[in-house]
Amino acid sequence: MSRKHGIVLIGAGNVGSHLARRMAECDNAPLQVFSRNAERARALGEAIGVRYTNVWEDIRGDAALYLLAVRDDAIAEAGAALARVVRKDVLAVHTSGSTPSTVLAPCFKHYGVFYPLQTFSAERVPDFEQIPVCVFAPHAPDQALLHDLAARISSSVHIVDDVRRAVLHVAAVFVNNFTNHMYHIGRRMLDTEGIEFALLSPLILETAQKVQAGADPGVIQTGPARRGDMETVLRHLEFLRKYPGYQDLYRLITLSINPALAPL
Amino acid sequence: MSRKHGIVLIGAGNVGSHLARRMAECDNAPLQVFSRNAERARALGEAIGVRYTNVWEDIRGDAALYLLAVRDDAIAEAGAALARVVRKDVLAVHTSGSTPSTVLAPCFKHYGVFYPLQTFSAERVPDFEQIPVCVFAPHAPDQALLHDLAARISSSVHIVDDVRRAVLHVAAVFVNNFTNHMYHIGRRMLDTEGIEFALLSPLILETAQKVQAGADPGVIQTGPARRGDMETVLRHLEFLRKYPGYQDLYRLITLSINPALAPL
Repeated sequence: MSRKHGIVLIGAGNVGSHLARRMAECDNAPLQVFSRNAERARALGEAIGVRYTNVWEDIRGDAALYLLAVRDDAIAEAGAALARVVRKDVLAVHTSGSTPSTVLAPCFKHYGVFYPLQTFSAERVPDFEQIPVCVFAPHAPDQALLHDLAARISSSVHIVDDVRRAVLHVAAVFVNNFTNHMYHIGRRMLDTEGIEFALLSPLILETAQKVQAGADPGVIQTGPARRGDMETVLRHLEFLRKYPGYQDLYRLITLSINPALAPL
Repeated sequence: MSRKHGIVLIGAGNVGSHLARRMAECDNAPLQVFSRNAERARALGEAIGVRYTNVWEDIRGDAALYLLAVRDDAIAEAGAALARVVRKDVLAVHTSGSTPSTVLAPCFKHYGVFYPLQTFSAERVPDFEQIPVCVFAPHAPDQALLHDLAARISSSVHIVDDVRRAVLHVAAVFVNNFTNHMYHIGRRMLDTEGIEFALLSPLILETAQKVQAGADPGVIQTGPARRGDMETVLRHLEFLRKYPGYQDLYRLITLSINPALAPL
């Protein structure tokens, strides 16, 4: 990593914490972690045994890489705050799927993205080895450094530019947020009728597992919409009169699966 | 099982085949399997080492239970065909989530449902031990027989009447068919942009795994819709102009997650 070395992590939320722990696990712990929240900075720093601070001015200025694991709408501001306390020639990258790398260009000559494509929550430790890490930097040596760092924590490293990462992020919203919303709808209906949501757990898991081995979801689709079973579709829509918002969703997704069922 | 004993399986599709194999595995193989498709009947019969036929008149008439694992819209017809070749007092049940048990009432005094709540495909052997089996019969001894049979092949047996099973089936459509459609949309977009769908596999699996341990999907929801990140939502909608159908879905699901984002 040229004359400079090491990483400073900015942000101790879910993404930052999981990244820091994984890096530490791979003998590549950050030199220092920063969070505006003093308690979070301390908790993460102590958990992985590295220095921590909640004061911008205390951030060390000699690291090779500054990793901004902050909310999408806080990246520009955090970058500007960071730029005031470090050298202009450091490499600053963010971890966002949906934010262009260029959001950091006003403050840094060397910028890029280090995007772990996973949903992180405080309670669960993901299998980091399998998590795709998408890296990008406009300058080749910066990109090589990010690729090297990613390869230390994951076996799935990909160079993905801003345009393609944006597509990946929209797709991720469909398969993660929207899928989770389908689970929520299922749960709401079952709760209302006094049926345990756990009855759907094996089905949920199997649905996800079917596409792990490469099965094409468009090909393996089943159910009343796919087989054009109008009688069942209409019975479901009738039941969903109790849940008008879900009825609209049912109609639109059913038609998206099988346009031949129009009009519904 | 009173004076009669044993099971005859009608239908050798995905549900029938997996049920028959699991029953055989649990030392409770059907006495006989029937399919209108001679080749399928033979394949399944030989696979589990039991008699098979594709001729209604060859179905043995002395079984305790006739299990109709046929398409939803074929249950009534198969029931009528079966009633012509067996005694009127046998127990006949179907395996459908969405069809009332009473579809068999015109032909049989003893009828019911034996519904394994899972998505079955030819290529994958599911972990049957975990699959919820929902049983129902209006006559208590019939229901006890179904419960007993279900408990031999699964550790998750539930008595679920027609009304509640219908709710479960609508919910299953959301968490299985609609979720799989979200995967399909993700794949379509990635294919178009030349990005491997496999990059989304860990995210898909983690999303499903998060709710396995009982996490409430409504509580753990993340993403631009949930956090009210209008900038990202609008950027996604702009990208989705290329996919008008998916843009409509994105808009509706986003508003369902977070109505405060209206109008979109």
